[in-house]
Amino acid sequence: MKKLINDATAVVNDSLIGFELAHSDIVRVDHAQQVVYRRDTPRPGKVGLISGGGSGHEPLHGGFVGFGMLDAACAGAVFTSPVPDQMVAATKTVDGGAGVFHIIKNYTGDIMNFEMAAEIAQAETGVRVESIVIDDDVAVQDSLYTAGRRGVGLTVLAEKILGAAAEAGADLDAVKALATRVNANGRSMGMALTSCTPPEKGSPIFDLGEGEMEVGIGIHGEPGRERRPIAPAREIAAMLVDPILHDLDYSGSQVIAFVNGMGATPLIELYLMYAEVAKLLEAKGVRIVRNLVGPYITSLEMAGCSVTLLKADDEMIRLWDAPVLTAGLRWGK
Amino acid sequence: MKKLINDATAVVNDSLIGFELAHSDIVRVDHAQQVVYRRDTPRPGKVGLISGGGSGHEPLHGGFVGFGMLDAACAGAVFTSPVPDQMVAATKTVDGGAGVFHIIKNYTGDIMNFEMAAEIAQAETGVRVESIVIDDDVAVQDSLYTAGRRGVGLTVLAEKILGAAAEAGADLDAVKALATRVNANGRSMGMALTSCTPPEKGSPIFDLGEGEMEVGIGIHGEPGRERRPIAPAREIAAMLVDPILHDLDYSGSQVIAFVNGMGATPLIELYLMYAEVAKLLEAKGVRIVRNLVGPYITSLEMAGCSVTLLKADDEMIRLWDAPVLTAGLRWGK
Repeated sequence: MKKLINDATAVVNDSLIGFELAHSDIVRVDHAQQVVYRRDTPRPGKVGLISGGGSGHEPLHGGFVGFGMLDAACAGAVFTSPVPDQMVAATKTVDGGAGVFHIIKNYTGDIMNFEMAAEIAQAETGVRVESIVIDDDVAVQDSLYTAGRRGVGLTVLAEKILGAAAEAGADLDAVKALATRVNANGRSMGMALTSCTPPEKGSPIFDLGEGEMEVGIGIHGEPGRERRPIAPAREIAAMLVDPILHDLDYSGSQVIAFVNGMGATPLIELYLMYAEVAKLLEAKGVRIVRNLVGPYITSLEMAGCSVTLLKADDEMIRLWDAPVLTAGLRWGK
Repeated sequence: MKKLINDATAVVNDSLIGFELAHSDIVRVDHAQQVVYRRDTPRPGKVGLISGGGSGHEPLHGGFVGFGMLDAACAGAVFTSPVPDQMVAATKTVDGGAGVFHIIKNYTGDIMNFEMAAEIAQAETGVRVESIVIDDDVAVQDSLYTAGRRGVGLTVLAEKILGAAAEAGADLDAVKALATRVNANGRSMGMALTSCTPPEKGSPIFDLGEGEMEVGIGIHGEPGRERRPIAPAREIAAMLVDPILHDLDYSGSQVIAFVNGMGATPLIELYLMYAEVAKLLEAKGVRIVRNLVGPYITSLEMAGCSVTLLKADDEMIRLWDAPVLTAGLRWGK
């Protein structure tokens, strides 16, 4: 294992130190709890927005804490759910009197811990907590760590859109309704060219042969739909886009298209993939109105990509365009 | 070779198609010439700013075309200088009557072609052209493709700072003087954990053993200072920072500190490295006033990082903070 680390057991903690130093204008970090907070949280009257999950997917979630996105992100160990204590602390801290909303990716551990935390926080302080479970991955129905579909790339779009809504003063019920709509209208599918190595494990989480790829991969290396020989980008794009369009009717829709890098895939390849995805969507009458291309929900140094398509109504597009100032996404401010 | 591509000989072209589709609000691409232009260039009275070089370093340079940064970027084949024709076309196109400035990384081919292009453009249209050759890499005095030090990470900072100056109305002499000051006050050093594979070559450009790293690597895999056993991040940080501080006196200075990812290194490791770099600088009395952490000048899917330190005067800091709107860097607008 070759990594820029000191101690495999302290990677998350050591990294959060640098993250806070680099972005002290935007965030502060509770290092004991491993929670990243927006500097100016809580904001009176604003719904507090929290997400979190295993580390190793950076910039998700800590990189999306800041104006117009999250109020807090709970960082678990690499590929491991954060614990309820972190979520309880975050929930109490970001509560500005308007309630707190949890954005949860659909993994069994994450859901259990976020639910427990919501109950504890509600019991202790009376804060009202609502949540959404993002389950956008069309690759598999159930998986290693999931009942139902996994939560992947749509989480990034949801955090941006819900963050903008909360920033603009949406109340907890409105955030919940919007979250439900975003989740109902977004689908993703990913693939990997290589595996990745969690620092504490010290070896790749799966093996892929020299000429092979895994189509339908999860963000923790969970097996996908099938292992296939490597193919040209245009065929890979179809392997990702077709299952999405098969799962949800996008015809005539306007979409936010997100081509995500899994970590080690160069931008030169991601833009090439975006061109292929755009071509396929145009042929199907699906209109891309906004896009995001880059490594935003990664799996350490895995090579590969995922495609997320969100059928976006005018409100979602307006919220997507709203100013955001985080370490990982910033525009308009 | 596993890559998300269609045809190894068409990667740059195919990628530029996606880049233009994704960022059509900011850029347009001359696909015949492989030049990325800012949508609204030329701007009357503004110095036109051009850079360019081999592809494979994305987001550099095309990702830095836009408001507050470059007017055009010439894309060569992977790790290969663009040709004079591209630079001549770009120089003529971005000329708004105030002259054109070329930002050149110190590689023999790049310099030769940019110089030839400047002469041709001047002869044909009378446009005044000035340039800077960035040579910030302290690793080696001469290298495979260079007489003198290589141009690496400082290029990103120079493009931001010079872009802001040109945007604010600096004339060609002022841009040239500022460029000279930036180049005199910036130094870099990089290292690699793995090699990378240019698509047309189809095999890694060098080999590194399982337990080895290359310290002082260039951005095209040119050999560095030494090959060493892999070490903890804190020791690697010292191997990068110490030679920089040895080369230029930073004591008591304020710096812009840039920890760059070579392509495949996860953000979680880059932030960890940033913490180590910050610790070392604090101990030496060097004050970080601004920072940049992420993959901004890459070598395809190489794993590793580089450190760039720019002794920044107040004007440079003001220009660094100025609004920028490009695919790769955006803030304040």
